[in-house]
Amino acid sequence: MREDARDAALRVDEQRLWQRHAEMAKIGAIPGNGVNRAALSKEDIVARKLLLSWAAKRNFTIGVDAIGNLFIRRAGTDADAAPIMTGSHMDTQPRGGRFDGIYGVLAGFEALEAMDEAGIKTRRPIEVVAWTNEEGGRFAPCTMGSMVFTGARPLADVLDVTDNEGVILKDALAQTLAATPEAKQREFKSPAAGYIEVHIEQGPLLENAQKTIGVVTGIQGLRWFNIEVSGKTDHAGTTPLALRKDAVRDSIAIINALTELTHDPADVTRFTVGRMLVTPNSPNSVASHVLFSVDIRHPDPQTIAKLGAAVEPLARKAAKFCEVKVTPTLHDDPCVFNADVAGEIETATRELDLPYMRLSSGASHDANYMSRVCPTAMIFVPCEKGVSHNEAENATPGDLAAGARVLTAALIQLANK
Amino acid sequence: MREDARDAALRVDEQRLWQRHAEMAKIGAIPGNGVNRAALSKEDIVARKLLLSWAAKRNFTIGVDAIGNLFIRRAGTDADAAPIMTGSHMDTQPRGGRFDGIYGVLAGFEALEAMDEAGIKTRRPIEVVAWTNEEGGRFAPCTMGSMVFTGARPLADVLDVTDNEGVILKDALAQTLAATPEAKQREFKSPAAGYIEVHIEQGPLLENAQKTIGVVTGIQGLRWFNIEVSGKTDHAGTTPLALRKDAVRDSIAIINALTELTHDPADVTRFTVGRMLVTPNSPNSVASHVLFSVDIRHPDPQTIAKLGAAVEPLARKAAKFCEVKVTPTLHDDPCVFNADVAGEIETATRELDLPYMRLSSGASHDANYMSRVCPTAMIFVPCEKGVSHNEAENATPGDLAAGARVLTAALIQLANK
Repeated sequence: MREDARDAALRVDEQRLWQRHAEMAKIGAIPGNGVNRAALSKEDIVARKLLLSWAAKRNFTIGVDAIGNLFIRRAGTDADAAPIMTGSHMDTQPRGGRFDGIYGVLAGFEALEAMDEAGIKTRRPIEVVAWTNEEGGRFAPCTMGSMVFTGARPLADVLDVTDNEGVILKDALAQTLAATPEAKQREFKSPAAGYIEVHIEQGPLLENAQKTIGVVTGIQGLRWFNIEVSGKTDHAGTTPLALRKDAVRDSIAIINALTELTHDPADVTRFTVGRMLVTPNSPNSVASHVLFSVDIRHPDPQTIAKLGAAVEPLARKAAKFCEVKVTPTLHDDPCVFNADVAGEIETATRELDLPYMRLSSGASHDANYMSRVCPTAMIFVPCEKGVSHNEAENATPGDLAAGARVLTAALIQLANK
Repeated sequence: MREDARDAALRVDEQRLWQRHAEMAKIGAIPGNGVNRAALSKEDIVARKLLLSWAAKRNFTIGVDAIGNLFIRRAGTDADAAPIMTGSHMDTQPRGGRFDGIYGVLAGFEALEAMDEAGIKTRRPIEVVAWTNEEGGRFAPCTMGSMVFTGARPLADVLDVTDNEGVILKDALAQTLAATPEAKQREFKSPAAGYIEVHIEQGPLLENAQKTIGVVTGIQGLRWFNIEVSGKTDHAGTTPLALRKDAVRDSIAIINALTELTHDPADVTRFTVGRMLVTPNSPNSVASHVLFSVDIRHPDPQTIAKLGAAVEPLARKAAKFCEVKVTPTLHDDPCVFNADVAGEIETATRELDLPYMRLSSGASHDANYMSRVCPTAMIFVPCEKGVSHNEAENATPGDLAAGARVLTAALIQLANK
């Protein structure tokens, strides 16, 4: 690591970063320390104006694209070089917390300020982006800003989406854009030389392993299925087991087979049956019908593809007495992050002497779309008991600052490559 | 078997017996060939009067006790000898069939007529009883008539029970008793030298084994439990399996352990999980709580006691991650019928050259209470696909007559012992 990268990283101001989280948490505050700041809402506008007010105090340039993604740029020495980008989102879940999303924006901004204060120059510009509508809680789909920016879906696809109150997205967007006239219009798909997103883990791995930094190597793939098992109801007292078409029994045989399929001593594979509906659901009636959900996740594309493909044949084979219908309901391929970017993050973490581990993200992020257009990776910091999407979401000032330090160093390394 | 027993058995008139089922089925007939004839209802009174009108044409004496159990007696040569009894019930489920209960009354009456027509005498009197309120569909509890007759519960306990319309049992009972003034009042717990109840199987064993007669050796014991598994909800994507307290996973581990516990190559043990309630019941949330029912039945007292006692420790042991609460909700000890009475039934069946098997009853019957006061056993005949408590309940005239023939022969054998 270059000396100037270390210097800038150590300029990260834990108190300032924490204070900014507290200021942002006031915008849309809800009881229990939570935040409700829907995308393109009045609260979102207030948060955007606050962020831009901080940017205005520095010599940073401000841009905005047609979906409302905000860009704060610290210039590089090579004016023609594509920037290294960082950021996350400022919207929250309806009963969200103080760190999900906003941390990535504030840590990115803290990195720019630390570089300024260290007086260092980078060859490439560095940009902090605040993506519009990552949560999708008000307007579906989620990760909308990065999706449109990267061209995964055209803007026209989402303009007419309405929220629960009937507000059309394009109207809320126009209001939001009008509120920050100082931001210069810019195009979608502007070139980027790299992207790093910092985020709270939203899971318990770092806390349990007592690690400060997670070097995130990808976002795991996901397969959802509904499995319907149809048998026949019978009297529980009079019908021998061999003559039953017991939908509960066959469902359990299927779940046992899927448990074996997904068994993973490394505990990377996620397998969840979270929903079960039993009919007629009476203690002395053999069940005629069960509907249950299957959620399987894995970061490796080959593994998740193999697991996903095995579900239906395995379910059919395991059910000895009933009819089985397997319906795929969701299919997300894994995102594998760029090894060089992850390597820079790991190097920075090691040189800053922070305890870390490599891990895969359980949830999706804007980095998912960015990884399709430029070298991308993520940095996680621990959150208390892994709780997120909840008012109780919590993280320590020290961990948040540590993540910002790693980000600062890694951004400088990438920007000077 | 005595020659007169065989003669009388062969006098059983298949057409007459079938015709009487058809006549009874008109009383409370509902669409789909079903019958709704609640205990102590107007329909019950009509059925009682019809039965007594047939009895009046023979030289039979008629009695009734204070709970409305009707007794039709064919005299024996020894006036002081306690009678051999047979019978069942005339009330039905709200959506009941044409055979459950009424068959046992009509088969008993057919036996008396066959004896009359064969001109045979028995030492002991033989009595057909029509027990009041076996189903319990209108007034709880079920098997009320035999329960009160045998002294298992005092009459006073049930007199104030009300039905869903607020009718008090004692009022409905008074109306019913007033409708058959010709029946002579008699006491509860009148001595009996034996009891045989004939019934449709209400299960599929005889049909599947292509047997005409079931020699019923007892009524199986029953244990019900509610098992509550309490863990913790987590995000299905971010929480490794080792860190989860997944209530579905532990519930399945418990059910697997109970499946192994109750595994029975002879397929006599009944094990049913018919009810499962999962919380929060969302595909991408690890379940925090599951409530499920356990229903275990077995005819052998030692076996059901052992199985019942094993449930709670096994459930606790199987659940690796969650809290487990096991609540017993029902406990019925098995009823083991008298070997001599069952032996007489088996002998009669064999000598009448009918295909038969020994089996245990999955459901309870009035014979359960009678077995506590006198030597008792039951005879089953097949019902179509094992369906009962349903309008679709069905049986063949030939099988019904076969059951009545075995009953006739066995009653004569017992009455002459």
